[in-house]
Amino acid sequence: MKNTYFSSSDILEMESRQRAAFINSLSGFKSASLIGSIDSNGNTNLAVFSSVVHLGSNPALIGFINRPDSTSRHTLENILETNCFTINHINAAIYKQAHQTSARYDKTISEFDATGLTPEFSKLLEAPYVRESQIKYGLEFVEKYELKINGTILIIGKVVEIIIPESCLLAHGAIDIEKAETIAISGLDSYHTTHQLARLTYAKPDKMSEEIS
Amino acid sequence: MKNTYFSSSDILEMESRQRAAFINSLSGFKSASLIGSIDSNGNTNLAVFSSVVHLGSNPALIGFINRPDSTSRHTLENILETNCFTINHINAAIYKQAHQTSARYDKTISEFDATGLTPEFSKLLEAPYVRESQIKYGLEFVEKYELKINGTILIIGKVVEIIIPESCLLAHGAIDIEKAETIAISGLDSYHTTHQLARLTYAKPDKMSEEIS
Repeated sequence: MKNTYFSSSDILEMESRQRAAFINSLSGFKSASLIGSIDSNGNTNLAVFSSVVHLGSNPALIGFINRPDSTSRHTLENILETNCFTINHINAAIYKQAHQTSARYDKTISEFDATGLTPEFSKLLEAPYVRESQIKYGLEFVEKYELKINGTILIIGKVVEIIIPESCLLAHGAIDIEKAETIAISGLDSYHTTHQLARLTYAKPDKMSEEIS
Repeated sequence: MKNTYFSSSDILEMESRQRAAFINSLSGFKSASLIGSIDSNGNTNLAVFSSVVHLGSNPALIGFINRPDSTSRHTLENILETNCFTINHINAAIYKQAHQTSARYDKTISEFDATGLTPEFSKLLEAPYVRESQIKYGLEFVEKYELKINGTILIIGKVVEIIIPESCLLAHGAIDIEKAETIAISGLDSYHTTHQLARLTYAKPDKMSEEIS
């Protein structure tokens, strides 16, 4: 394929919406999650995020990136108020409702009501889960970093409970997220199902890793 | 589907490799990237990462998570030494070689030589690109955060050049990463191709977003 090249100044000179679409697709496929939160008055909030990232397994830590000025600012405010949130995988049946949560609703309007998704509560956390999501987990807020370079916020949560379909738990410990129809996001607005190529054996220097059948 | 529930203590009591596989699949589908770097003596390094995350478009900023004690520690050392790195999308043709870069090679052994991938250099950066990767970009190191909670490192780079196939650039600015056969990762060892469900229109409060045809 013929390549095209973009320099720093090419990127700088792009029209801003074009550049946002361009740079947002550069990082590869992204996780597709709905983050559920609640304020101290009991107002629930739900927002789509594609920046959820694994930070560690012991303790189990997950992070995500938030912009204070974005439509997801209520998520950040709620988490700092009530110290908890939920992460709910987006699947092929609910991706349109999930995307709709990115509209700029007033704080008094719950995205659950606006999109038709169903809030569900555990005994442990105040923050709402999404009933229609198959894989979901609850987190306690633990740390927040403001990135100096552009003011975005990294929020870190500790996983305190996990709910998954029993049939999606694999023998070696992993969750079969493809079986649960979890999808992936590209850029700002493109949603994708997946097809497994293979699992590969743990890589060692002295022999090439192989497919696990 | 019947659900199964894991509490904090269930997670704590899991066997460590099982827990790593479990928690690593919890964040959803992950980007599949090879990070190329070089030390001040000219030794190249290449390592698979699934933690690359978009941080901002203007300026264009990308982050990734690194563990100082992991097989990818040379990536971190090199970036701090030479202040640059490359990110190369993993596609279906090279995912086995990409996975193999996670083996614990000595610092004097280049993963390019060990896996058969081909280093390629731009005029701008010292760090090597991967010839077999279709979508690739170069970054200048800008910030580093050590996360207090578990000592992992967030590295932030500013995008300074981008190389993509001309045929993968879409009219609205995004890159068609599915056309470039970029893949996604689940957990520690599972590789996936994708199939686009749809692109959706920008969400507004007063009407449901729709498919873009």
